[in-house]
Amino acid sequence: MSVQEIHADLGGFNMIGRLLISCEDRPGIVAAVSRFLADEGANIIHSDQHSTDPVGGLFFMRIEFQLHGIEDHINELRTRFEQTAASFHMKWRMSCASEKKKIAIFVSKEDHCLQDLLQRFRLGELSADISMVVSNHDDMREIVKPYGIPYHHVPATKDTREEAAERHLSLLEEANVDTVVLARYMQIIPPVMIEQYQNQIINIHHSFLPAFVGGKPYNQAYDRGVKIIGATAHYVTEELDQGPIIEQDVERVSHRYQIKDLKRIGRDVEKLVLSRAVGWHLDDKVLVYENKTVVFP
Amino acid sequence: MSVQEIHADLGGFNMIGRLLISCEDRPGIVAAVSRFLADEGANIIHSDQHSTDPVGGLFFMRIEFQLHGIEDHINELRTRFEQTAASFHMKWRMSCASEKKKIAIFVSKEDHCLQDLLQRFRLGELSADISMVVSNHDDMREIVKPYGIPYHHVPATKDTREEAAERHLSLLEEANVDTVVLARYMQIIPPVMIEQYQNQIINIHHSFLPAFVGGKPYNQAYDRGVKIIGATAHYVTEELDQGPIIEQDVERVSHRYQIKDLKRIGRDVEKLVLSRAVGWHLDDKVLVYENKTVVFP
Amino acid sequence: MSVQEIHADLGGFNMIGRLLISCEDRPGIVAAVSRFLADEGANIIHSDQHSTDPVGGLFFMRIEFQLHGIEDHINELRTRFEQTAASFHMKWRMSCASEKKKIAIFVSKEDHCLQDLLQRFRLGELSADISMVVSNHDDMREIVKPYGIPYHHVPATKDTREEAAERHLSLLEEANVDTVVLARYMQIIPPVMIEQYQNQIINIHHSFLPAFVGGKPYNQAYDRGVKIIGATAHYVTEELDQGPIIEQDVERVSHRYQIKDLKRIGRDVEKLVLSRAVGWHLDDKVLVYENKTVVFP
Amino acid sequence: MSVQEIHADLGGFNMIGRLLISCEDRPGIVAAVSRFLADEGANIIHSDQHSTDPVGGLFFMRIEFQLHGIEDHINELRTRFEQTAASFHMKWRMSCASEKKKIAIFVSKEDHCLQDLLQRFRLGELSADISMVVSNHDDMREIVKPYGIPYHHVPATKDTREEAAERHLSLLEEANVDTVVLARYMQIIPPVMIEQYQNQIINIHHSFLPAFVGGKPYNQAYDRGVKIIGATAHYVTEELDQGPIIEQDVERVSHRYQIKDLKRIGRDVEKLVLSRAVGWHLDDKVLVYENKTVVFP
Repeated sequence: MSVQEIHADLGGFNMIGRLLISCEDRPGIVAAVSRFLADEGANIIHSDQHSTDPVGGLFFMRIEFQLHGIEDHINELRTRFEQTAASFHMKWRMSCASEKKKIAIFVSKEDHCLQDLLQRFRLGELSADISMVVSNHDDMREIVKPYGIPYHHVPATKDTREEAAERHLSLLEEANVDTVVLARYMQIIPPVMIEQYQNQIINIHHSFLPAFVGGKPYNQAYDRGVKIIGATAHYVTEELDQGPIIEQDVERVSHRYQIKDLKRIGRDVEKLVLSRAVGWHLDDKVLVYENKTVVFP
Repeated sequence: MSVQEIHADLGGFNMIGRLLISCEDRPGIVAAVSRFLADEGANIIHSDQHSTDPVGGLFFMRIEFQLHGIEDHINELRTRFEQTAASFHMKWRMSCASEKKKIAIFVSKEDHCLQDLLQRFRLGELSADISMVVSNHDDMREIVKPYGIPYHHVPATKDTREEAAERHLSLLEEANVDTVVLARYMQIIPPVMIEQYQNQIINIHHSFLPAFVGGKPYNQAYDRGVKIIGATAHYVTEELDQGPIIEQDVERVSHRYQIKDLKRIGRDVEKLVLSRAVGWHLDDKVLVYENKTVVFP
Repeated sequence: MSVQEIHADLGGFNMIGRLLISCEDRPGIVAAVSRFLADEGANIIHSDQHSTDPVGGLFFMRIEFQLHGIEDHINELRTRFEQTAASFHMKWRMSCASEKKKIAIFVSKEDHCLQDLLQRFRLGELSADISMVVSNHDDMREIVKPYGIPYHHVPATKDTREEAAERHLSLLEEANVDTVVLARYMQIIPPVMIEQYQNQIINIHHSFLPAFVGGKPYNQAYDRGVKIIGATAHYVTEELDQGPIIEQDVERVSHRYQIKDLKRIGRDVEKLVLSRAVGWHLDDKVLVYENKTVVFP
Repeated sequence: MSVQEIHADLGGFNMIGRLLISCEDRPGIVAAVSRFLADEGANIIHSDQHSTDPVGGLFFMRIEFQLHGIEDHINELRTRFEQTAASFHMKWRMSCASEKKKIAIFVSKEDHCLQDLLQRFRLGELSADISMVVSNHDDMREIVKPYGIPYHHVPATKDTREEAAERHLSLLEEANVDTVVLARYMQIIPPVMIEQYQNQIINIHHSFLPAFVGGKPYNQAYDRGVKIIGATAHYVTEELDQGPIIEQDVERVSHRYQIKDLKRIGRDVEKLVLSRAVGWHLDDKVLVYENKTVVFP
């Protein structure tokens, strides 16, 4: 039974719509939006908002609402919302919870994050269609097989980087992938892909950023003698490990821990942090501004 | 300089109103409320809501809004809101952030929670007027003195319990106290007082409830050999340690910890948990239903 | 490649011995033991000790030492240590790190703890031979298959409980199993098995004990409105959920969490807590006394 | 009642000695040391050890032992231990638990760490004699007064830095101060003082080092959009915020937190981290090597 089939059995996403908004803050936004939804016959289930400053700041909002037949009429609904959106100069997007995002998981040689994601999808903890797993190695093929997900081995060395990028992009485009998850994919993502998937590529960095940017963060942590290690999930931007942080978590360590122990402990933190970030992203709970995130968990 | 004078200098609460609502969930509530506020010229700064179930569940909402002149017109505003409230059968309350709650702190012989609260008030972390400190001992008088807060020593033994309760109630009433904080006040609160201050008496229990109800929880924790200890802030109800939980936190311990170590570690957890719960209560961020709390932090 | 073969590749346990001691505290124990080891040519790598009270208390000690050829001479070493042990009335045991414990994993219908344990064994995080997986259902057979571990389906209903217990014991005895891990095995363990495997059966209970003993702890937690949930790994004794606690951990929740969310969050805590407890047990890092544990992590 | 008088009442440190050792690892160290102590009639209460590598690594040990009359004979004991120490080329120190360290607390304008330390000393949580509080401002004089501790106001501007340093050193020397605690003392410590008090000056830095070195770490954390903030206690070395880390802790934050909220939350973390680090230092539980610490908590 594939992940897709299992999810179809789960239900629970029918008739649920999501509306994400960001604009300059001023009086009347909530009233206008909730009036629009009420007039459409929608019931607001969850609503979160945030203002960076009530006077002249930015306003962010996420509304989850229930509306019969939204799946068949989302485009009309979008059209009708345009007027409200325009009057507040909103950036916005509206989606059906039942329209699952299509994701690609990129992985290298360490499989703990991949395995963890696959199991969460199987258990219905994460709501998406996994379109493919992509790796610069062939090692994970057997792990992915039982899930019925296509596996693409795309070698990526210094010399083949450009070809690899082209192959990646054509794979993603063919499958209409929305979101790329770098599940310990230890390769540089080329600017062309970052541009095309802005705030759609999630990376797990195995340190508590901004500490220990770059390679071998556990070695750096060991050398510095820190008493706590961490992991950071962030959107990928052109500057290495500098993108908007979605989630972080930490674990306590001591002088007894060798580098291999930090790696072992770290694996558990990485898995948890990445799966939380991916889950929030899939549920449209993350908004990005000024290289930061607003997360409505 | 008294706590009150320092707070007057802080400002920041002017023109801010808060509206708390609970009712049965049905479409249109948010639209009606936000329309009302927009029509009044108010700008919504924060808004949180929660539904126990979108179909036939309970709906909770807290809105923080900015409105010029609210301090002078809050009563008219309340009157005008009544119609909206009635059409949804709401339980609701509306307040000005600048109208600070009046609190009484009850304490026995351990002073760490009292000291912590006093310092947070001094630093402006908690927004209230401390009307009095009440104790069954005279020990804390000198600690309270520099803060310019009235100190009432009301002895409370088995025989004088009734007199003490009467004295407490008349002290609270004279000073128009809204909220009672039991900062490690190790005495039973009589039903008459609990009834009069429903969901207005906050207690700190020195265990991770519902584990270790009653006296000497650290001894119980030691005997059971737990690996984590905790503290719980809750509203006081007639059943001992059974009231709605506002906040909990924990700290890791090990076999090395003697009972005195658990008490020492526990003090830090108690202080943090109580101050968070008191802060949320003072900012009208806690709603109670079915012996549980909805906290909009 | 089987788990056993992978482990054989890891090495690192050669020449390592472990000595665990408990006795009444009195001067000279450490000197006698470390003198014995020095005379044998052993180098102490780790040493932990604990006294419940320096005067008339209990003394616990765990020593990890390096000794060439210990694998071939452990029995002579044990014989030679007897004199030292007798002079302090020690309870003690000595083992080689390379002699892995044989464990049986019991599981019902939820697979997250089983999967987590299997992966940690595969990654070499846990050092044991998994002799078998036992279940009252046949559902996990496919999950276990790739690991090359025998799977025994032993139905256990009310009526067949006695037969099941006999079958369990004969399976465990045939395979010389040392340790039983109940990885969410939701069945009562009969007294005969508890007696035979005293402090060798590890259970994961899905609450922060002693809160929420018995079945459906997440429902209990939801009803009580706690702000933190937890999990507890403990040795199984005849009284349900009352055995010595090895490890506990917690995760923060809020009013937004439905029971299904508590279960989802809880799975991650359960996995971490159980794997830590099993790891410490396998490395002989847990000593039991008076229904508590001393853990030298 | 002064802190000193209160502590005298506490007792519990009599007859307790501590021995700290570091040397190259090789067989027989524990045997030799424990034999020495047994021959002296001492009973080992706690013992911790750590090897960076059993082959050719460094060995660290801390032993707490009970010995009648140690207070009167510590110097003879030290002399007798010299032979054992020499045979393993140990660096070592031996102390009586009853000989409290003399500490100076340096503070600027923020008083939360100072207040926290003073209360912990009053409660007997920290075992030291506070010889003085030193500040570049006069603001804290009233806070310190009730504790009966000398308060020295030593202005420190760019121009008077050298004079200030001289004054500091002469104050510390006159009072035989062992340990300097920088409780949010926002001034550079001159090299001459660092050299004289090597691994004896503890600073609290208000970030999770190595993230956010230097001034205004909460502003840096806000700008980077981190989801967790922290604090770090470390020994002061010549390179700013680069000294050996003794303790760290963190607290979760979100997009809702303004810089002032990070500062407020941060104060609680700073207090806890600093007090733990100071406590371990006072109890001789911290050993330094290669710009890292071994902490035996």
